[in-house]
Amino acid sequence: MADGFSFRVTAACGPARAGLLRTPHGNVETPAFMPVGTQATIKGLTPAQVADSGARLILANTYHLLLRPGPDVVAALGGLHRFCGWDGPMLTDSGGYQVFSLADLRRIDDEGVRFRSHVDGAEVRLTPEDAVAVQNRLGADIIMVLDECPPLPAATSALRTAVERTVRWAQRCRAAHRRQDQALYAIVQGGLDAALRTECLERLTPLGFDGYALGGLSVGEPPAAMWELLAAFGPRLPADTPRYLMGVGTPLDLVRAVAAGIDQFDCVLPTRNGRKGYAFTSTGVVRLRNASHRLSTEPLDAACDCYACTRFTRGYLRHLFMSREALGGTLVSLHNLRFYQVLMARMRAAIVSGDFDAWRRRTLAGPLFDGAAKPDHEQEQAE
Amino acid sequence: MADGFSFRVTAACGPARAGLLRTPHGNVETPAFMPVGTQATIKGLTPAQVADSGARLILANTYHLLLRPGPDVVAALGGLHRFCGWDGPMLTDSGGYQVFSLADLRRIDDEGVRFRSHVDGAEVRLTPEDAVAVQNRLGADIIMVLDECPPLPAATSALRTAVERTVRWAQRCRAAHRRQDQALYAIVQGGLDAALRTECLERLTPLGFDGYALGGLSVGEPPAAMWELLAAFGPRLPADTPRYLMGVGTPLDLVRAVAAGIDQFDCVLPTRNGRKGYAFTSTGVVRLRNASHRLSTEPLDAACDCYACTRFTRGYLRHLFMSREALGGTLVSLHNLRFYQVLMARMRAAIVSGDFDAWRRRTLAGPLFDGAAKPDHEQEQAE
Repeated sequence: MADGFSFRVTAACGPARAGLLRTPHGNVETPAFMPVGTQATIKGLTPAQVADSGARLILANTYHLLLRPGPDVVAALGGLHRFCGWDGPMLTDSGGYQVFSLADLRRIDDEGVRFRSHVDGAEVRLTPEDAVAVQNRLGADIIMVLDECPPLPAATSALRTAVERTVRWAQRCRAAHRRQDQALYAIVQGGLDAALRTECLERLTPLGFDGYALGGLSVGEPPAAMWELLAAFGPRLPADTPRYLMGVGTPLDLVRAVAAGIDQFDCVLPTRNGRKGYAFTSTGVVRLRNASHRLSTEPLDAACDCYACTRFTRGYLRHLFMSREALGGTLVSLHNLRFYQVLMARMRAAIVSGDFDAWRRRTLAGPLFDGAAKPDHEQEQAE
Repeated sequence: MADGFSFRVTAACGPARAGLLRTPHGNVETPAFMPVGTQATIKGLTPAQVADSGARLILANTYHLLLRPGPDVVAALGGLHRFCGWDGPMLTDSGGYQVFSLADLRRIDDEGVRFRSHVDGAEVRLTPEDAVAVQNRLGADIIMVLDECPPLPAATSALRTAVERTVRWAQRCRAAHRRQDQALYAIVQGGLDAALRTECLERLTPLGFDGYALGGLSVGEPPAAMWELLAAFGPRLPADTPRYLMGVGTPLDLVRAVAAGIDQFDCVLPTRNGRKGYAFTSTGVVRLRNASHRLSTEPLDAACDCYACTRFTRGYLRHLFMSREALGGTLVSLHNLRFYQVLMARMRAAIVSGDFDAWRRRTLAGPLFDGAAKPDHEQEQAE
């Protein structure tokens, strides 16, 4: 692995595993959930509040930072960690997912992609070499290869084209990578086809990456289809490096994916839903604008130890949302991040104690999973 | 004074004075600046962040809380302190100022005012008795009489009418007040006419209020005209109760007013300007959107000990504003509140040490006062 990195599986329950990822900016217990700081800020929260949630590793989006303020500005301001005031480990994606989902895409060919900036309309080129160079400039601990990410459902031929291109681009990213203090992860494509995924993986592993991610999931397919692919394919990912499921997901998705041996996750769901007044709680999803909370002196989640739950009533939180006060989104984002971190900590503890299967059956039968919304990829730009 | 209250002047330098105000929710050193929590939240900040700024006493607006969520909801949720999670002393205004400046005013007569709610268009009546009853329900430590607040410039006859009505309404508020654990302050009107202000005051003091406020300033007149009135009239306010200058102001206004013997202030300026990226600093006003900060690794204010100044660069703060990220407004609001609290603490220390006049001359000649904007009363509703 890269300098200053190591990964060790410390316990397993079937495919599910707990581990320790060491990075130059600190250690991360896995399975780990990464809050998303799209523009190098977790929306509405200070780094201190994010750290209070228990998060150790956070994500920033290369696509957004490439367009604004630009990698040269981030580098001149001391690199990503110093820039955004986060001392702990960080990961940047390659920008590929946002180019495919957000940008006015002008052209994709083997060389790379050209698209129009949503900030100023300028035409921007992004090759695999560019994606790595930008991430080398930004300076996150973990960086990602540029991949082609087709939305689902997709024709087999489109999935195969994406796999071919993803493999060729991964090779170029590997060759272009210049910083030994940054880990480089590959991304496996192939849609819901476990055989195609396996082929993609088998062509990537000889290149020697520091981790392997699953891309192209939670992009339009039914959750059950994703879970089935995860159960079949997750355990085939290399055992001695981190396994990262990109852009996923709901609490239910996380439980299913950990059961399939995944170690790392990111998703905008806890913060985006938080800003809308949707809270994940130990008794199910709470919609704070609901009139039923008007006179409620209950905390948002009596089982939660976060600042929002220990200091405020549901009635006050509802008032903040009805009055369009930013503090509402801040407090529920903070709670949702804490909820996700506690969920991950419980899964780690259950794996370590050998009780993961029983814990999972008990939890999946409980009130937690009564309608958690999927992330809304159409609105990615707003995040 | 009301139960649980006392006020004591502990030091003086000419008209300027330092004091200690005791309330049922804690003590406040004066002169004191109160952050404004219009809808029972200081916009974008948690109560913990507000407390970190050094603020001890905060304000909420009766007008806004009357319309949404309503005093019955606040009372059912435990009263204002419990409602918004602020353990310290609180003050509510009477709603009069907002009715005159914000509402679609339907009628004013001796009985009271009728206006249309900006939330749902409903017609709302507010008499002096209503204003006190609502504030009794909300439960702040300090409440205010309903007054008539004419904008400046105003004809002498309009000012006199407002004084007459303000005195009669103060009498009715005094009679209607039901909670001995809430201090009730009177409001002195009379525009820029010190003789008319004196007459108003002389008719209010026999009614026996717990404090006396100056209303109807910073409502359109030039700052120098307000300062002249303050210098002439401030020292005539009763010496043994707190003197409160409502809705003011810039750092320069605060220095001028403390020199005239004022003890309490509130203003939206630090938070409203903070949300716009305007920062008060020890070297003058900083406009964070300015391109000159693009690559700046400097802190916002090298002399400040707040979280924003000790953790982030001007370059990152600029990025947040250019990217429309809420954290920018939160961090600069937090800094501006800290700046105001430090300014007040320096004035208190200078008064206690007997050096206030020298401190004031030195400070007014310094870089602090190079263009601090006036609060924008036209946009009060947005706050």
